[in-house]
Amino acid sequence: MTTKEVAKAVVELVRKQAWYEALDTLYDDNIVSVEAFSMSGDSPETRGKEGVRGKVDWWVNAMDVHSFDASDPFVAHDRFVVQYDADVSDKKTKERRKMSEVGIYTVENGKIVREEFLPRV
Amino acid sequence: MTTKEVAKAVVELVRKQAWYEALDTLYDDNIVSVEAFSMSGDSPETRGKEGVRGKVDWWVNAMDVHSFDASDPFVAHDRFVVQYDADVSDKKTKERRKMSEVGIYTVENGKIVREEFLPRV
Repeated sequence: MTTKEVAKAVVELVRKQAWYEALDTLYDDNIVSVEAFSMSGDSPETRGKEGVRGKVDWWVNAMDVHSFDASDPFVAHDRFVVQYDADVSDKKTKERRKMSEVGIYTVENGKIVREEFLPRV
Repeated sequence: MTTKEVAKAVVELVRKQAWYEALDTLYDDNIVSVEAFSMSGDSPETRGKEGVRGKVDWWVNAMDVHSFDASDPFVAHDRFVVQYDADVSDKKTKERRKMSEVGIYTVENGKIVREEFLPRV
């Protein structure tokens, strides 16, 4: 797949909240996934598809998702950017918050090899 | 300056269309600037501050800018993203068009060392 095809597929699957399908079909085994902050005090960087699967598991278990919007993608060369706007509640604390961030994705050989998430400031 | 401070400064100057001030105050001498497409058939990559100054000269001379909006920045680690929505006319052809793109910026030692522009698809 081209970068543009991968970008369109990511947006389509995220809009369906089909996180596992996105991971299984679009991600390289050696994916590097970088958050703005570490959730547990260790590195904000997760390496490997199974590591990212753990992040998806955490997300699905921790959050009630009221809405999750993805913008159309912005694409050039081997990179694309998608903006996400989410309205979620923490299942435990019931704290509800809106999140706005972009993902920067790098594609090699039709698979996502790197993703970085940047919150709006 | 931190990445966040550079990001805020870029947004403030772009909103004023103060392209040269942004270049002179925020860009590293060894900036690499990457467009989605080459305008002249050669590389889409421009290296060095004077090369980028040439791009700004081209822009200012070629375009009537009816509006140029910059989003708030998205920031993490050494990178930030800004979305731009512009309404411009080519001074020669009078063709008017809307452009939507994001810039991905990389910061080192308080200066922008790389920028990439990705159009919405």
